[in-house]
Amino acid sequence: MTEPSSEEFRTLVQGVFEQVPFVREVGLKLHAFDFAAQTLSAEFARKPELIGNHFHNILHGGVIATALDTVGGFTAMVAAYQRMGGAIDWEEKVQRLMRLGTVDMRVDYLKPGRGEHFVCSGSILRVGNKLVVSRMELHNDREELISTGTATFLY
Amino acid sequence: MTEPSSEEFRTLVQGVFEQVPFVREVGLKLHAFDFAAQTLSAEFARKPELIGNHFHNILHGGVIATALDTVGGFTAMVAAYQRMGGAIDWEEKVQRLMRLGTVDMRVDYLKPGRGEHFVCSGSILRVGNKLVVSRMELHNDREELISTGTATFLY
Amino acid sequence: MTEPSSEEFRTLVQGVFEQVPFVREVGLKLHAFDFAAQTLSAEFARKPELIGNHFHNILHGGVIATALDTVGGFTAMVAAYQRMGGAIDWEEKVQRLMRLGTVDMRVDYLKPGRGEHFVCSGSILRVGNKLVVSRMELHNDREELISTGTATFLY
Amino acid sequence: MTEPSSEEFRTLVQGVFEQVPFVREVGLKLHAFDFAAQTLSAEFARKPELIGNHFHNILHGGVIATALDTVGGFTAMVAAYQRMGGAIDWEEKVQRLMRLGTVDMRVDYLKPGRGEHFVCSGSILRVGNKLVVSRMELHNDREELISTGTATFLY
Repeated sequence: MTEPSSEEFRTLVQGVFEQVPFVREVGLKLHAFDFAAQTLSAEFARKPELIGNHFHNILHGGVIATALDTVGGFTAMVAAYQRMGGAIDWEEKVQRLMRLGTVDMRVDYLKPGRGEHFVCSGSILRVGNKLVVSRMELHNDREELISTGTATFLY
Repeated sequence: MTEPSSEEFRTLVQGVFEQVPFVREVGLKLHAFDFAAQTLSAEFARKPELIGNHFHNILHGGVIATALDTVGGFTAMVAAYQRMGGAIDWEEKVQRLMRLGTVDMRVDYLKPGRGEHFVCSGSILRVGNKLVVSRMELHNDREELISTGTATFLY
Repeated sequence: MTEPSSEEFRTLVQGVFEQVPFVREVGLKLHAFDFAAQTLSAEFARKPELIGNHFHNILHGGVIATALDTVGGFTAMVAAYQRMGGAIDWEEKVQRLMRLGTVDMRVDYLKPGRGEHFVCSGSILRVGNKLVVSRMELHNDREELISTGTATFLY
Repeated sequence: MTEPSSEEFRTLVQGVFEQVPFVREVGLKLHAFDFAAQTLSAEFARKPELIGNHFHNILHGGVIATALDTVGGFTAMVAAYQRMGGAIDWEEKVQRLMRLGTVDMRVDYLKPGRGEHFVCSGSILRVGNKLVVSRMELHNDREELISTGTATFLY
């Protein structure tokens, strides 16, 4: 296969995102994706299985960590792809992007995860030729900042 | 209700643990619980919905974060309960333990999450009268250390 | 002593900042301070003792961590002071602010610490009645983002 | 130069450690170094310039971060050196070890930094062919655990 257009790349990313089993389990869906700005966002709705504290009806911290890790990782993938540039052929780029993995992540839980609907967005702090550092935020449907995170990815 | 015996407290913790909706979703079960040592462990089996990278058949980072956060939090709950001691009555202790929440967490992903079965264990680094810091580890069934984490909890 | 005006409070913060021995050692000076926005910044010049890698003439990671921790902590102090509000008297506020301490911090080293002069700025992610979470950034004199951090403070 | 013996390597590490300007400023000295176990420790004495809170006479958080970052980094260097093995020649190993840098670090401040004398020790959580993850601890002269940290290094 030859290098895809940026529209084709977007469609590929969307396809990979939607096939991750645990992402489907949580119900996270790719929402917006700005190739040039290297930002990406995903959204999900509250459902009973995602609750961590049913006395207070708030999301489990692990659901929030899942959203941040996933969005941070896909944002990193877009940035790593652009960083690899024209010198590396498409097959090798795909190989490297498939191996992209989270090295470490910090999550800050700023407010209880209350709401019907959540949006998680990612942006890039650093792209090197081996590592990407992403920053992530999770907001609820009242635009309250529920959680932030920073994660390092290796590709 | 009056102060439970340590055996009753263990049964209560077990009951609360098993009723957390997202913990059930992941399939995490309380395994061992040492009241005096303030350590606790939980286990879960791999199942298709927990996979993050199906090319490599490894756990999603969010599943690992969920296990670490849950085990760290319940270990913190046991430590906070002991720390409150005899001066605070049982009703108030319950109120405070119900509000215990994760402030922040770091997760290190040391090896790909391969395996059939995983054990996550927690221990205590600090117990104050407001904060608890827990350290967590996740091993697979070949006793490989897959992930470690540190988290701060407020109660 | 009675509650200071916001101008007097600024002078007090400046005085405390400048008297911290290790802050003097590094040469960190309070630069800007916006009481309403709860932001604060400090600056320092490169000097030979601050170098970590003399083959590359870059700042030691510990110097960067010192700047982030200090700026994050003073930003948290301003936010905690405002949060305590009118219900708590000045003496008690001072007692609590003196005890404010860092619980944990994450630092990301994004680029090598090259430059003649550095500015570190802090802002607030969360202010509760016990905890404050600050975010910090360090830029060099070419406006490059050298490092970011997130820290949790207890007061 | 040809590959050094492990005794010569130890002497080299000691020499590099002692020449880092900010490490000298803090007064950190290499204490023990176990090549086979990939552990390393350093020590320093309290002195007035290292104080962060002179009301309570405790170390500045930045001093603790400096000790953890330095010890974690040198422990990582030893592990990276061993990991590179016989296939890479000495000149190239030196080049790579000189570029070893901290990617990110988490520090937990567990107890106030009181004491006359401190020991900081490091061990390895992961060594890959690009990344090393170290865990660090700081104890005072009463053997109290003052601080722990985890850091990721790239080489």
